[in-house]
Amino acid sequence: MLLEAIYHRPKQNWCYAYDERTIHIRIRTKRNDVDAVHAMAGDKYAWDQTVAYIPMTIMSSDEMFDYWECEVIPPYRRLKYGFLLQEGDQKLWMTEYTFLGEPPADPNRLFEFPYINLIDVFTTPEWVKDAVFYQIFPERFANGDPSINPVGTLPWGGTPRPDNFFGGDLQGVIDHIDYLSNLGINALYFTPLFTATTNHKYDTEDYLQLDPQFGDINLLKKLVSICHERGIRVVMDAVFNHSGRTFAPFVDVQKNGEQSRYRDWFHVSKFPITVENGIPTYDTFAFEPLMPKLNTENPEVKAYLLHVAEYWITEVGIDGWRLDVANEVDHQFWREFRQAVKKAKPDAYILGEIWHDASNWLQGDQFDAAMNYPSTNAILDFFVEGSTDAEGFSHAIGKQIAHYPRQANEVAFNLLDSHDTARLITLCKDDKSKMKLTVTFLFTFTGTPCIYYGDEIGLTGGNDPECRKCMEWDPAKQDHDLFKFYQELITIRLNHRALRTGTFTFLSPAAGSTLLAYAREDDNEKFVIIMNNNSKVQSTTIALEDSQFEDIRTKKSHMINKGLMNVELLPYECLILKAVRK
Amino acid sequence: MLLEAIYHRPKQNWCYAYDERTIHIRIRTKRNDVDAVHAMAGDKYAWDQTVAYIPMTIMSSDEMFDYWECEVIPPYRRLKYGFLLQEGDQKLWMTEYTFLGEPPADPNRLFEFPYINLIDVFTTPEWVKDAVFYQIFPERFANGDPSINPVGTLPWGGTPRPDNFFGGDLQGVIDHIDYLSNLGINALYFTPLFTATTNHKYDTEDYLQLDPQFGDINLLKKLVSICHERGIRVVMDAVFNHSGRTFAPFVDVQKNGEQSRYRDWFHVSKFPITVENGIPTYDTFAFEPLMPKLNTENPEVKAYLLHVAEYWITEVGIDGWRLDVANEVDHQFWREFRQAVKKAKPDAYILGEIWHDASNWLQGDQFDAAMNYPSTNAILDFFVEGSTDAEGFSHAIGKQIAHYPRQANEVAFNLLDSHDTARLITLCKDDKSKMKLTVTFLFTFTGTPCIYYGDEIGLTGGNDPECRKCMEWDPAKQDHDLFKFYQELITIRLNHRALRTGTFTFLSPAAGSTLLAYAREDDNEKFVIIMNNNSKVQSTTIALEDSQFEDIRTKKSHMINKGLMNVELLPYECLILKAVRK
Repeated sequence: MLLEAIYHRPKQNWCYAYDERTIHIRIRTKRNDVDAVHAMAGDKYAWDQTVAYIPMTIMSSDEMFDYWECEVIPPYRRLKYGFLLQEGDQKLWMTEYTFLGEPPADPNRLFEFPYINLIDVFTTPEWVKDAVFYQIFPERFANGDPSINPVGTLPWGGTPRPDNFFGGDLQGVIDHIDYLSNLGINALYFTPLFTATTNHKYDTEDYLQLDPQFGDINLLKKLVSICHERGIRVVMDAVFNHSGRTFAPFVDVQKNGEQSRYRDWFHVSKFPITVENGIPTYDTFAFEPLMPKLNTENPEVKAYLLHVAEYWITEVGIDGWRLDVANEVDHQFWREFRQAVKKAKPDAYILGEIWHDASNWLQGDQFDAAMNYPSTNAILDFFVEGSTDAEGFSHAIGKQIAHYPRQANEVAFNLLDSHDTARLITLCKDDKSKMKLTVTFLFTFTGTPCIYYGDEIGLTGGNDPECRKCMEWDPAKQDHDLFKFYQELITIRLNHRALRTGTFTFLSPAAGSTLLAYAREDDNEKFVIIMNNNSKVQSTTIALEDSQFEDIRTKKSHMINKGLMNVELLPYECLILKAVRK
Repeated sequence: MLLEAIYHRPKQNWCYAYDERTIHIRIRTKRNDVDAVHAMAGDKYAWDQTVAYIPMTIMSSDEMFDYWECEVIPPYRRLKYGFLLQEGDQKLWMTEYTFLGEPPADPNRLFEFPYINLIDVFTTPEWVKDAVFYQIFPERFANGDPSINPVGTLPWGGTPRPDNFFGGDLQGVIDHIDYLSNLGINALYFTPLFTATTNHKYDTEDYLQLDPQFGDINLLKKLVSICHERGIRVVMDAVFNHSGRTFAPFVDVQKNGEQSRYRDWFHVSKFPITVENGIPTYDTFAFEPLMPKLNTENPEVKAYLLHVAEYWITEVGIDGWRLDVANEVDHQFWREFRQAVKKAKPDAYILGEIWHDASNWLQGDQFDAAMNYPSTNAILDFFVEGSTDAEGFSHAIGKQIAHYPRQANEVAFNLLDSHDTARLITLCKDDKSKMKLTVTFLFTFTGTPCIYYGDEIGLTGGNDPECRKCMEWDPAKQDHDLFKFYQELITIRLNHRALRTGTFTFLSPAAGSTLLAYAREDDNEKFVIIMNNNSKVQSTTIALEDSQFEDIRTKKSHMINKGLMNVELLPYECLILKAVRK
């Protein structure tokens, strides 16, 4: 056994309470290096009477490591534990201090999970596990009320530029609510709606007012109410890292400099504020002078922003917040934010924009989920770029899954594109079968899928601003086949819990292969999904325990011969097969 | 390079803000496997203009790994970073995703430290870095006021039992304040002083009253005032995990069962509360029916306990809290506790009783330090048990140092014994030279040393209750040589900042060896400490850069010949040598 590869640390993703009774324990070993791992666990105050060896199984793997996991329900909500690692005849016990060739004589040197305190248990909203999100960039979704068009509004469908306007608004969303219901989504995520100067509205002017180009608060209330009637949740975007240049306190600082009563609302290094050689004398988002960083440590600023967070929940009834540039704001702010938001609505969804490993925000005290760009990268690398093979893909995803506690994975916000990236169809060079395969993965993967508006009818576009085109409402120009495809996938996902929160297991992902197979399984159902990520016909043989499967779409039956299923797949074909159990 | 051994993760002890400007980055590699490591770091929004390669050095090692560290002061308080690892001609770049043979093309896949938010920076009290603590178990330190002796008080100096009393009190501490000043300590840690039924007072009856056997609040104020006049800080023990059986709310629950208005102050699984087969029907400390676990998630309980925390700071002026069974209380409580305490006294010391890896409490949002029992174990294993050699000892300590951010190490609460363990002299089987060597290590090590009352005059005792003997005040029975030894060590430590917060480096610790050498160094001074942890005379040769050292105690000069120092040490002798710099 390669001891240097073995990793465990108490808490974080390695040992955490999954619910008020259950502890998950994980350990990392070198890939294919260890035959069996057991957690040796017992009550710390009654060790001899309670100690037991609990078998661990490999939950995921990456290119270097296997990640083992087990579930323990301690009788008194507390655990002392170590590990027994076996390879052939060799047995090793791992304690908090060292590795031993025999069971540890002193249980005090084992690891501890001191006590499951309910308030520390990372609890995520149940509804998000069943959600299918649809992201709306409001300026470009639909113009339902030309009377509130901003000055200079261009005709719908023109070329998107960083600074032009097409008049999309809330009435437009209301007008198309049947469209969204018909698609089948059950959650909306709006990029910012508050008053701001830009078309993307990430430069907030007033956190307590809707931008007049979108409509007023009563219209938003109406929209939320209509959504809720249809079982559609609504999540809004909050930019708490920075404000816009026209935010009243910043206007005051621009005007009154050091004398401004808002001078400590920002991080100013030199008055009067200015920009020297491209560098503002105050902290900003990146080096953007129009986006001054808010001092979220200032109690006044904090009180104001937490009021904003509560206000839109209690006034309008929104179901959660997506938080822009969330990783640059202090953890202390987010802890208080979570408390305020969950107090206002216990099952509100808190989603942080973090492009990297978000572990430090996903421990139960801050966010429910992060924009899962690491998984996006892994998916695009395999399905779109073809820069990884099935094995490499399974490793990239396996690493991600192991990084977070299970409850974070269950509500991970999974996306293939957004207003910040090129559109999927464009990344796929307009290859629709490739696009469909990629989307199928998203909808049969752990975590909450999100559709970027227009993807479902074939809207194209490269990086910003191209990805922010006006939604296409002309039926003649919409891709109806694609729409039906999305509809069907949503229905399949929503009809089968195993596809949402069942275990996710890659089935022998092979090096050099573009054939991918994985299983999703819960107590009721088992699915096997087989994909041909290639422009050529490919055959494969998969070892399976069940004797019969049914294609969830074609209803075609697949019999298993001596535990093996042989299938041939067309280019970019995908089979979603459900085990037939009597 | 063994890639499986390489470990880094953003935040925690691997990448953290040391102060408002400085980020420390660490990475782990297999021991003796890598020639050089650089952090490749730059501003994430101006990567090409700011990227630099910063050399990392080995900060510590253990039996399997080297831990590398560097310091970065980013120009805009944010970093994107990766690593360059070199072994011979081989160069590898490590990103958040993988290892590459060439510089990463896409800086977006590097690690990030998003922004140094001051409020998240782990800040510990400056005074603790300069503190020498003295732990007092008040029932056994000195009886200064027999008029408040509890019923059945025994004559001073009798055999300690779990349930007997000798009448120690606060007046006794006041009476001996000159003794403590003379010893040289500058901080007192009192085990609990609040009303309780036992002699150790860990079963609190009233968190807002001193136990009458110790004196009243005015006497405590007097004591704290006398201490402060002499530059002695005072830390009290708080038992917030559980109360005592006689705590009024629990008395009410015992009496009124389910009808008690305090029923939710505890974790009761079945009314009326009882003990079935040794297991209480309510959560307790361990299975001890007399110590019901408090429901610190209950807002009423929380408000009460936070009031307690503030009350003794604002009313009496204490300088910090030691928190009993701290790891079994919820993190959320401790976060609010830190805020309340630091608001009442910004430089209050918050010290948690955690016997294990305390990383999850030492990230800046909860404690300043933990009782450093992992280091205690390492020290006793080497100096007292002789179960490790110099190399093994350096590994055990090296692992500890790498586990925590530097600010946590600087105020780690280091102890060799306590009311919960056998006394050091007894562990040393009364071998005073062995004991002295062990103590010398403590006083020349990183972190804050604590003396358990009486150790300094040779008080003996095995595990509880023996370690809780009455303090010996008869000069004829005190070990004056030992007292002078402690006095001298305290003086040396307090006179030289390098011995407190300077870097700590083992000098070639050898397998099988009982000779130990290490350096302490800051900008002003450098010390080399050499120890013979053996009952035989031993000689050693140490490579040193300075040309001359002086023994800090004997003033004897040691010249370095061609970069090598040859010394002979008597059994258990220790040399504390200071580099002589013109």
